[in-house]
Amino acid sequence: MSREVIHQIIGMMEDIRAKKPLVHHITNYVTVNDCANIVLAIGASPIMADDIDEVETITSISSALVINIGTLNRRTIESMVAAGKKANELGIPVVLDPVGAGASALRNETTERLLAEVKVTVLRGNMSEIRFTAGLEADTKGVEVSEADQKIGTDEGTQVAQNVARKFGCVVAITGPTDIITDGKRTIYIENGTKHMSNVTGTGCMCSSLVGAFCGVLDGERYSPLIAAAGGVLVMGLSGELAYEATKHLGYGSFRTGIIDAVSKMDGDTLIQKARVYES
Amino acid sequence: MSREVIHQIIGMMEDIRAKKPLVHHITNYVTVNDCANIVLAIGASPIMADDIDEVETITSISSALVINIGTLNRRTIESMVAAGKKANELGIPVVLDPVGAGASALRNETTERLLAEVKVTVLRGNMSEIRFTAGLEADTKGVEVSEADQKIGTDEGTQVAQNVARKFGCVVAITGPTDIITDGKRTIYIENGTKHMSNVTGTGCMCSSLVGAFCGVLDGERYSPLIAAAGGVLVMGLSGELAYEATKHLGYGSFRTGIIDAVSKMDGDTLIQKARVYES
Amino acid sequence: MSREVIHQIIGMMEDIRAKKPLVHHITNYVTVNDCANIVLAIGASPIMADDIDEVETITSISSALVINIGTLNRRTIESMVAAGKKANELGIPVVLDPVGAGASALRNETTERLLAEVKVTVLRGNMSEIRFTAGLEADTKGVEVSEADQKIGTDEGTQVAQNVARKFGCVVAITGPTDIITDGKRTIYIENGTKHMSNVTGTGCMCSSLVGAFCGVLDGERYSPLIAAAGGVLVMGLSGELAYEATKHLGYGSFRTGIIDAVSKMDGDTLIQKARVYES
Repeated sequence: MSREVIHQIIGMMEDIRAKKPLVHHITNYVTVNDCANIVLAIGASPIMADDIDEVETITSISSALVINIGTLNRRTIESMVAAGKKANELGIPVVLDPVGAGASALRNETTERLLAEVKVTVLRGNMSEIRFTAGLEADTKGVEVSEADQKIGTDEGTQVAQNVARKFGCVVAITGPTDIITDGKRTIYIENGTKHMSNVTGTGCMCSSLVGAFCGVLDGERYSPLIAAAGGVLVMGLSGELAYEATKHLGYGSFRTGIIDAVSKMDGDTLIQKARVYES
Repeated sequence: MSREVIHQIIGMMEDIRAKKPLVHHITNYVTVNDCANIVLAIGASPIMADDIDEVETITSISSALVINIGTLNRRTIESMVAAGKKANELGIPVVLDPVGAGASALRNETTERLLAEVKVTVLRGNMSEIRFTAGLEADTKGVEVSEADQKIGTDEGTQVAQNVARKFGCVVAITGPTDIITDGKRTIYIENGTKHMSNVTGTGCMCSSLVGAFCGVLDGERYSPLIAAAGGVLVMGLSGELAYEATKHLGYGSFRTGIIDAVSKMDGDTLIQKARVYES
Repeated sequence: MSREVIHQIIGMMEDIRAKKPLVHHITNYVTVNDCANIVLAIGASPIMADDIDEVETITSISSALVINIGTLNRRTIESMVAAGKKANELGIPVVLDPVGAGASALRNETTERLLAEVKVTVLRGNMSEIRFTAGLEADTKGVEVSEADQKIGTDEGTQVAQNVARKFGCVVAITGPTDIITDGKRTIYIENGTKHMSNVTGTGCMCSSLVGAFCGVLDGERYSPLIAAAGGVLVMGLSGELAYEATKHLGYGSFRTGIIDAVSKMDGDTLIQKARVYES
């Protein structure tokens, strides 16, 4: 168990609640409300803006940028690129969630273009999406991980994640039964969460948004993007786990509500008691 | 009581949970999150994609397509037509929800165009919307059924539904106090549901999405589109009924959550005990 | 305590439930579902439509128009202007929520353009947004009120609100710890609500939508836009207060659900007992 990582995550969470960083999202219209609410629940402040005439300004006043291609279109793709470049220029961290990469040429080309033109701080996806960015055959079934990719073990997954991290010089987070978070050298594993989270839309998107909130307090040298990514993934996984236990007798509507509840009640004690964080 | 229909619906529901069909939606941004969550709750997998550059690809990998014109615009109308044509080419079932048909020229023309250019499998709407597609005077008040159309009885409604079904060679589902589902020959009536469902936005959209999930397991000869439509309408109505009973002391926010809860807990025993399905 | 204002608000609320006015929204994709559900919860009927080819028609059949610039873009800005002009032509009340005015040139210019080209009935925003419309330095931080503007007292806020009300000949509602609602002459203060409402996305948007529902029963001379604005603000604030008490042990996901619950259960007795409405 990596107590040091957990304590750093707790420190970042306290920073989020003290500083309330603004997190600019260019994201999809399916799960955008949940993304905004989860960012508020952890203590940060969301702003959603996607018009090319304002994205650079909005990124400039923000502490992090989250790009999520869930319902990308020609108009918003250009906004994603412009906002990403502005973030790079100003040293603002960028989280990329390549939703459904592997499922269509548009998603593939956009993911490749974003990774080529924007320096990404954290790339978060499921095994299929990250395999796509690795140049591997990704048997993506829509926006969910494919059955074949679900069977990939932690060792092989670690290889993929580390390769992608080195290729793009970023932190890579593959979320799944065991979450794998790596900067290409250090690798953190998180075993919180529940498989039922895939029965609520947007748990991946919300995870990326939480990573965005953690990245929003990355100013200075105290914390690393690796810990920021682990923080978002851990809070999401543990919140999902706690929410499922609290609502499983009710159903998936209550489960969705319970996830936001759990994030808003998350505290250091709960993380110390229940986080299952390991380092290889 | 039509036990045979109920048993076929239960069989389809088991198929959905076993096969997890991908259901492509081109839909509105108001209720899209609820549509995604209800498709997950019944056991299928939603994907929302509306850019013209990817809709044909996304339809190609899907088992059903749901077109919902709730917040249509020039850009997405073209995507709807392209996706619909691709679905027809590949034999993928298409569900059309002509939200607010009758309320504006844009909705009227788009509904007419979709019905002319795309072979629809199931057309689901309220009495005003379906009357519009029948070429009748539809006194549509926004996206809800008009007061005049609310007073139309089951006999007259059946005539309208059967005429539209024959006109377009599709299954027609008119949801209301008594749901009327017909392929032009056989007609099924469902008396589940509660009038309070109209106090939560998107119960019509969610119904169409559930019909999409049922259509996603229509491969082969075992089930008919008529039963798929009845399945979606029945699960929606009964879930609304159960959710209202469970949450009426709380209010409409909890009612909305309860509908997703009820769909995720729906099972064969509940359907056998509580479905009120008749055939004329 | 202004019992007269509370009784007028109760009268308007009864009118909403009796007449079910249609409220056309051109709004953002983040909180649109909550806006639709809160309009239904108070007893009115929402319609969301933003394509330039139909907004004038949809406004024409509606009883009020709500323009919310939360995720504005080039396409929808033109729709907002066209719908607003049509509403003016037909004497339909217009509510403007200038979300994030002060945060980007696009939001600033759009707010100015809307206020120049459309006669607004009620302008609702936080202190930063309304200060922007007053031509004052607005230290807007994204879509939330800035820290500096949070410290502005009720007296100074009243000055700002009254100046803006006179400048544009409209009712101005600044929501905050004390809500200030004025037509430039009469000023109403409301002290319901809780600071926790800023931890759920869209409480400002939902407030504007409720104002839209109240404006939807403004036909005739019986009620004034000032009371309509106060009605929406009061129902929102009190619902937030009641919902927070009911859900604070659970978290912000349940709080969000509880707000819609409370609006749907709001009645005259609750308003008489718990409204804190004053007039200067």
